[in-house]
Amino acid sequence: MESAEFLDLLGNANRRRILRLLAERPCYVTEISEFLGVSPKAVIDHLRKLEEAGLIESRTDEKRRKYFSIARHIRLEVTVSPYEFGTKSAYPASSRLDITSCRQLRIDLDKDIDETDQDRDPDDIVSLAEALHSVETLENELSLAQRWAQGRITELRRLLENAVGGENSRLLTNILLELAEGPTEVEVLSRKLEVPPRVIDDILDDLVEDGVVTRDGHEYRLET
Amino acid sequence: MESAEFLDLLGNANRRRILRLLAERPCYVTEISEFLGVSPKAVIDHLRKLEEAGLIESRTDEKRRKYFSIARHIRLEVTVSPYEFGTKSAYPASSRLDITSCRQLRIDLDKDIDETDQDRDPDDIVSLAEALHSVETLENELSLAQRWAQGRITELRRLLENAVGGENSRLLTNILLELAEGPTEVEVLSRKLEVPPRVIDDILDDLVEDGVVTRDGHEYRLET
Repeated sequence: MESAEFLDLLGNANRRRILRLLAERPCYVTEISEFLGVSPKAVIDHLRKLEEAGLIESRTDEKRRKYFSIARHIRLEVTVSPYEFGTKSAYPASSRLDITSCRQLRIDLDKDIDETDQDRDPDDIVSLAEALHSVETLENELSLAQRWAQGRITELRRLLENAVGGENSRLLTNILLELAEGPTEVEVLSRKLEVPPRVIDDILDDLVEDGVVTRDGHEYRLET
Repeated sequence: MESAEFLDLLGNANRRRILRLLAERPCYVTEISEFLGVSPKAVIDHLRKLEEAGLIESRTDEKRRKYFSIARHIRLEVTVSPYEFGTKSAYPASSRLDITSCRQLRIDLDKDIDETDQDRDPDDIVSLAEALHSVETLENELSLAQRWAQGRITELRRLLENAVGGENSRLLTNILLELAEGPTEVEVLSRKLEVPPRVIDDILDDLVEDGVVTRDGHEYRLET
């Protein structure tokens, strides 16, 4: 689902209340309508929008009455800063994702959950509860670490834009960031930053003159 | 800022476009109006809402014309799953936050950014660019790790609710999770889970009988 579609849906307080209710338990239209104090017609309208987006789904019980529940796990992150307005929406990653490939991050769970899907005794509710508690603690720590990282990003951006100065400080900073990723060429920078090659060329020439960047044929790299 | 207020503001496509524009550069009302193809009156209305929430701020230039920019760094996380509808909004954490206190998480930045605020030579733009690139990489890894963690949370919840079974499986799971945090009493569980003590009592009695939980005076603990 697109972040924009997700934000449009979440921008309505009654739709948020419906999602909160359905996360507690599956519900009939009449239950939702009573709980919200909103007409069944309005509830049906909200439910239709949520269902079309794939956020919720409906089933019918033995008396052929329709009830609704949340269909999927989805996650949205929004960042607003003087340098960024970013939205990311994503489905949870598969358990096969190799989290150990992270370069700057190491995760040591208190309780091993590797064997979750295949080998765990499904009746061993104590070990399941401990594993779940452990991942929930990890999730809180990740959230905290992310707030820390974003504080540092804003601070370093401010320092860097001040250090390079001038009218083009935002663009210059973005060029330096691309070069910090690795050596690159004018055409690549022009495409990524959506700026004419001529402008990039001029800035790189200045950076070479200042001894910040080295040129090697078509490639430019940070002088470290 | 409350998550609900933030979501109300972000639920409008034009307000999102205004934030995206202001993250590029500070702007006058006329610039925003032209860029969006929306009347100045409507733009002013959006700007007023964003300013009242503290998301943006205005200054006047030397010609006494008002211009707007993003005022602060703020972050929002939304999680929707069959078991949860959660929203968290937070300001970035201070650099003084002790990230090493995390139990299950270790962060090793490629480039040291500890000395950022005090000792770094403010003109050393290469080392600033490298530090910024390093934190941005970390931020991506944290985001990926969070998706992984949330996938595991949903999967373990599903396994645990199936394992305990019955009508009360959601409540039972929540009780087990509280006990995984540490030994606790009926009154504490009743308050945290907003369920009458009598109901908690009955469930704990069953868990003791099944050998999953041990009772010690007023305290209950998981049998590990």
